[in-house]
Amino acid sequence: MIPYEELSKEELLEIKSDLDAQFEAIKAKGLNLDMSRGKPSTEQLNLSMEMMDVLTSESDLVCEEGVDCRNYGVLDGIKEAKQLLADMMEVPKDNIVIFGNSSLNIMYDTIARSMTHGVMGSTPWCKLDKVKFLCPVPGYDRHFAITEYFGIEMINIPMTPTGPDMDLVEKYVNNDPAVKGIWCVPKYSNPQGITYSDVTVHRFAALKPAAEDFRIFWDNAYGIHHLYEDKQDYLIEILMECKKEGNPDMVYKFSSTSKISFPGSGIGAIAASDANLEDIRKQMRIQTIGHDKLNQLRHARYFKDIHGMVQHMKRHADILRPKFDMVLSSLDRELSGLGIGSWMAPRGGYFISFDSMEGCAKAIVAKAKEAGLVMTNAGATFPYGKDPKDSNIRIAPSYPTVEELKTACEIFTLSVKLVSIDKLLSNILGI
Amino acid sequence: MIPYEELSKEELLEIKSDLDAQFEAIKAKGLNLDMSRGKPSTEQLNLSMEMMDVLTSESDLVCEEGVDCRNYGVLDGIKEAKQLLADMMEVPKDNIVIFGNSSLNIMYDTIARSMTHGVMGSTPWCKLDKVKFLCPVPGYDRHFAITEYFGIEMINIPMTPTGPDMDLVEKYVNNDPAVKGIWCVPKYSNPQGITYSDVTVHRFAALKPAAEDFRIFWDNAYGIHHLYEDKQDYLIEILMECKKEGNPDMVYKFSSTSKISFPGSGIGAIAASDANLEDIRKQMRIQTIGHDKLNQLRHARYFKDIHGMVQHMKRHADILRPKFDMVLSSLDRELSGLGIGSWMAPRGGYFISFDSMEGCAKAIVAKAKEAGLVMTNAGATFPYGKDPKDSNIRIAPSYPTVEELKTACEIFTLSVKLVSIDKLLSNILGI
Repeated sequence: MIPYEELSKEELLEIKSDLDAQFEAIKAKGLNLDMSRGKPSTEQLNLSMEMMDVLTSESDLVCEEGVDCRNYGVLDGIKEAKQLLADMMEVPKDNIVIFGNSSLNIMYDTIARSMTHGVMGSTPWCKLDKVKFLCPVPGYDRHFAITEYFGIEMINIPMTPTGPDMDLVEKYVNNDPAVKGIWCVPKYSNPQGITYSDVTVHRFAALKPAAEDFRIFWDNAYGIHHLYEDKQDYLIEILMECKKEGNPDMVYKFSSTSKISFPGSGIGAIAASDANLEDIRKQMRIQTIGHDKLNQLRHARYFKDIHGMVQHMKRHADILRPKFDMVLSSLDRELSGLGIGSWMAPRGGYFISFDSMEGCAKAIVAKAKEAGLVMTNAGATFPYGKDPKDSNIRIAPSYPTVEELKTACEIFTLSVKLVSIDKLLSNILGI
Repeated sequence: MIPYEELSKEELLEIKSDLDAQFEAIKAKGLNLDMSRGKPSTEQLNLSMEMMDVLTSESDLVCEEGVDCRNYGVLDGIKEAKQLLADMMEVPKDNIVIFGNSSLNIMYDTIARSMTHGVMGSTPWCKLDKVKFLCPVPGYDRHFAITEYFGIEMINIPMTPTGPDMDLVEKYVNNDPAVKGIWCVPKYSNPQGITYSDVTVHRFAALKPAAEDFRIFWDNAYGIHHLYEDKQDYLIEILMECKKEGNPDMVYKFSSTSKISFPGSGIGAIAASDANLEDIRKQMRIQTIGHDKLNQLRHARYFKDIHGMVQHMKRHADILRPKFDMVLSSLDRELSGLGIGSWMAPRGGYFISFDSMEGCAKAIVAKAKEAGLVMTNAGATFPYGKDPKDSNIRIAPSYPTVEELKTACEIFTLSVKLVSIDKLLSNILGI
């Protein structure tokens, strides 16, 4: 392959004319495809259908500690659900609090509580002139939406292949007392699929925050969401690492079963130090009498234990793997060597991150839309929706079928080529 | 019956000695009884057991609008659940937003949002020097706990047999811009079982708040929780009444199925004007991807419609009625005419409110505890846990069996008599 950049204006125009024809042909099909959200497919949902039969009118609905799960009571989760999610999150079960169906909601509540009540006795953030959060980019749009909603200033931290740029993280966290947190998806990161290296995790644990109420928001959303049986990433457990470094209270860890059982009807949890959990329970006691214990019981009895859950995830992987392979092989075949985009092959998670030539991402997403393919909005992976280079695009291969993905990738790679050629031509013409 | 107050010191001492013996005898049994919380009994929970069979692995889990309830999507509730809860709350289904398992959590979120983001564009309450809430007393401890948690100043408003003292409510709301809300349980109120009269509701709707962001927090927790087939209370619908009075945005209405299906695993909802709901959805979009739709579907399919739900409530009433009757008949038999306490017979809800002689409630609850009976803490029905007269005690008859209630009432009435005699004696002795 000759990189497009080395081609002449005439050569580019010739290729463009050919690609235009292909694009018009596919556009004419009036397709409706979606690679925008990390949504499990129907086939994946079907994997958990037997969960619907676990609790029936004949079931004993009393949990291990002797509480009737149908009634009020048990603020922070029944024992068997705590054990399951503690194992999933690799922490002691006493360091877990179970919430409702969404870890996003727990993160929102955590920020909201810090705004109005501070963190373990610190000044409420709403009383401060300035609160800042570090945001490794590209990252998860819904994280950034929460901090934006609360008027928290977000600072971009570039991702590297081993995690966020830790020199920069240390510089901000250790010197600026207005920096109160950092959003992390440490394993199979959204959208790049990067797993933080041992050194990165260790440097996180060894931070010396200028703010006593600085917290790492460690959203381990994809902890057991591997794609391959024979190759998987490993991540050091951050709570223990922080404890070892004398920073036991510095991290909140979040996770849920949303992409394990059912996205709308899973259970979410937070893991943290005893002192942090005591602070959180103070709020919980005011906020609720307790979350849905029947759903906790349903999950605990269905998966039985972490081994059951891990086995279950292999069935998810069997469905997801061919989809990721389809996207990656399309990108390789169509774009390798052209110098108009780069990407990484993740070993887990829900996304593939694509970086186009600078200034092309928005146009590519718009172009794909013309042919009926919905992508995540360009910019969404950055705070305030602003990608300074306009180059990152998140690809979510989970929901469409392999067949649909094939067409979607055709549209996507055509769009990348066409927009890139336009960009190169406008450079040549000096527009 | 001769009122205790008219008895001589000697007569009182004689009665006391007799009551002491009875008390010691019952205390010797080492009982463990609980009339403290409005918790449905196991028998009541069993009424809804077939709900556990409504959704199975064979079920079609797609809701009316064509969404797979297992997956992400649908922010504010599936149509069929909205219809059911809208009918339950007597509002149009477009004026409903469904949340998770707890209306208390919705109320908490509503206050929390007002603190950090204001109400429909008003100044966030956390930026104000002073925020005040009116609290009809006696009232619901968990309401007061929320406003206390957020540092909101609470002002007692005495309840009357037709609802809160509206002269006082109007005086505060129409003149003090720091007054941002009022907690109401308008039907079968907690703990008195009072239903606000038509005139009271109308006066609420016609308020002219000094604060544009004043809201009525209308917690209609017991809207269809009648005790008697042949006599029930009726409550005017507040949203419509406010609309008629030109105050469409002045009220949030809350409810849930907690005491209809399962307390831990019901569904909660808020009803409000379009403008209020748009304000709320702005937050919801940040806070969650959506609540548990499978549980919404389970409820909608189980109850089918509001008629099904109303029929279901009659079965709850059949279980609750004998319990209320047991408590009321005990109070009547043991305490009527003694001038040491007063109470009302509610037509629905979960509580009976008892008012002792001034300065006796704490001692009565402590006395009952000596004999193994747990009551709601005296004072709990007032903001900050402070009953200025120390006289109100909330009785919750739902959880114990009728047999247990019989003994519990024996302990309670003995405790009332003994503490009252002590009080009268200390008055006589001038202590």
